[in-house]
Amino acid sequence: MTEQIFGHIPGHPEGSCFDSREALSRAGVHRPRVAGISGLGQGGADSVVLAGGYEDWDDFGDEILYTGHGGRDPESKRQIGHQTLTRGNRALATNRLSGLPVRVTRGALLHSPYSPELGYRYDGLYQVEDYWRERGRSGFHVWRYRLRKMRDGASQGSMVVRTIYETEAGREVKALYQYGCQICRTCLTSSVGPYAEMIHIRPLAPPHNGPDTPDNILCLCPNHRLLFEVGAVAVAEDFTLIGHDGTLMVDFRHLLNKDHFRYRRMHYPIEPDTD
Amino acid sequence: MTEQIFGHIPGHPEGSCFDSREALSRAGVHRPRVAGISGLGQGGADSVVLAGGYEDWDDFGDEILYTGHGGRDPESKRQIGHQTLTRGNRALATNRLSGLPVRVTRGALLHSPYSPELGYRYDGLYQVEDYWRERGRSGFHVWRYRLRKMRDGASQGSMVVRTIYETEAGREVKALYQYGCQICRTCLTSSVGPYAEMIHIRPLAPPHNGPDTPDNILCLCPNHRLLFEVGAVAVAEDFTLIGHDGTLMVDFRHLLNKDHFRYRRMHYPIEPDTD
Repeated sequence: MTEQIFGHIPGHPEGSCFDSREALSRAGVHRPRVAGISGLGQGGADSVVLAGGYEDWDDFGDEILYTGHGGRDPESKRQIGHQTLTRGNRALATNRLSGLPVRVTRGALLHSPYSPELGYRYDGLYQVEDYWRERGRSGFHVWRYRLRKMRDGASQGSMVVRTIYETEAGREVKALYQYGCQICRTCLTSSVGPYAEMIHIRPLAPPHNGPDTPDNILCLCPNHRLLFEVGAVAVAEDFTLIGHDGTLMVDFRHLLNKDHFRYRRMHYPIEPDTD
Repeated sequence: MTEQIFGHIPGHPEGSCFDSREALSRAGVHRPRVAGISGLGQGGADSVVLAGGYEDWDDFGDEILYTGHGGRDPESKRQIGHQTLTRGNRALATNRLSGLPVRVTRGALLHSPYSPELGYRYDGLYQVEDYWRERGRSGFHVWRYRLRKMRDGASQGSMVVRTIYETEAGREVKALYQYGCQICRTCLTSSVGPYAEMIHIRPLAPPHNGPDTPDNILCLCPNHRLLFEVGAVAVAEDFTLIGHDGTLMVDFRHLLNKDHFRYRRMHYPIEPDTD
């Protein structure tokens, strides 16, 4: 197998056009001739092609909601089973934590306002900001990825791996716990004050559309925020922790909505099918 | 004392002009009539005025390197002692972790290309991205703050508290430690792989200008990265940890440059004068 290249391919800048998957492959922009994701398993994905076919793609230009592969009938192309977090799907998920960039190429058959009129166009580097499992239109599980366009020059020097946000409601919840982690009780302190992070149990961003209210917010230390964020730690119906010893600490004034935990367990499963 | 308001003051949008500090104070945009920083201690700072006077300001428009107050002779206005991390200086440092926004007003006497021709102009909301101690032009310690302009609308909804960056050299160092924290050995893992964060011991951004090379990079878990970042944990000459039990774990192939640790201990002191 040729060495995997992350980032732009020299000689094929953003905007380069290609007649066919064959040409795209020869140029090294997207090696596989059929698969939509280039990359296998733990090594990460270096490239994806958006070219129609799957049922659930949403293309907003700088943001793409990409659907993984698998579970389709090879004849009818209809979804006939669950997608698993294996092969390309697994590879693309790996980029979520490694921060490695993914080349995005759009094909003409995409039915998107951003697709080229003919052939294939290389549209630059994206990062995998998040991924989750959801019930596709067919009723079967599919894996979804939020790809976000990287800013120019980001591939060369330093690039953003994670961004921590905060809202007014989050500050309220953090104050309630005096910045202590609801999972491990740790409170990080510096000479000028304490630090904790908030997380929305059901994420705010579409398609999740969780509310920005205290019943959907936890106060966590950075380590447990990361683990909760990627589905390595979850919270059961009775607040028992999954993937971690003990129970979520909940202040009696903090009325959490259990539907949001249910939503997260479904979409960020702690033991996805990875083999 | 009137309640402290963080964010825009209703009726005085960005770009509003004021004749005098008196007018600025009455409008509530910057309450104190003399002090450059509005806010005391742990509550955080809600506003600063840039109006000339201190020796070490650098105004790049969307980024400002702001110098704290104190240590000046009231008559000559010359720096005659160290600045301490107290009063307004402490307040502004607190915003670094709380993420609370600071109103920035520029005065005409600033000698900056961004200053107004007359009076004072309110220039919108900034965040305190970092702060550190350095030797000012006078030879005395001053506290410096990196203020970064917030994007429109950020004050209403969710705002960025922290951004985690990564570079190629950082990925090398993380691989060397197999994503284990050099302080606590923790390795965060999810179903698709491990996660750790890099930090430049001497920061990359001007005025620090640290190199993006492995001898200036540590691999840390998110919690220890935060503590190291804000100067709550440091590393001594012999790799003993300061502010934490034990010793920094260093792989024999990882040749760290001790000058960078020295730089960080000077600029991010573990026990700044806070009273």
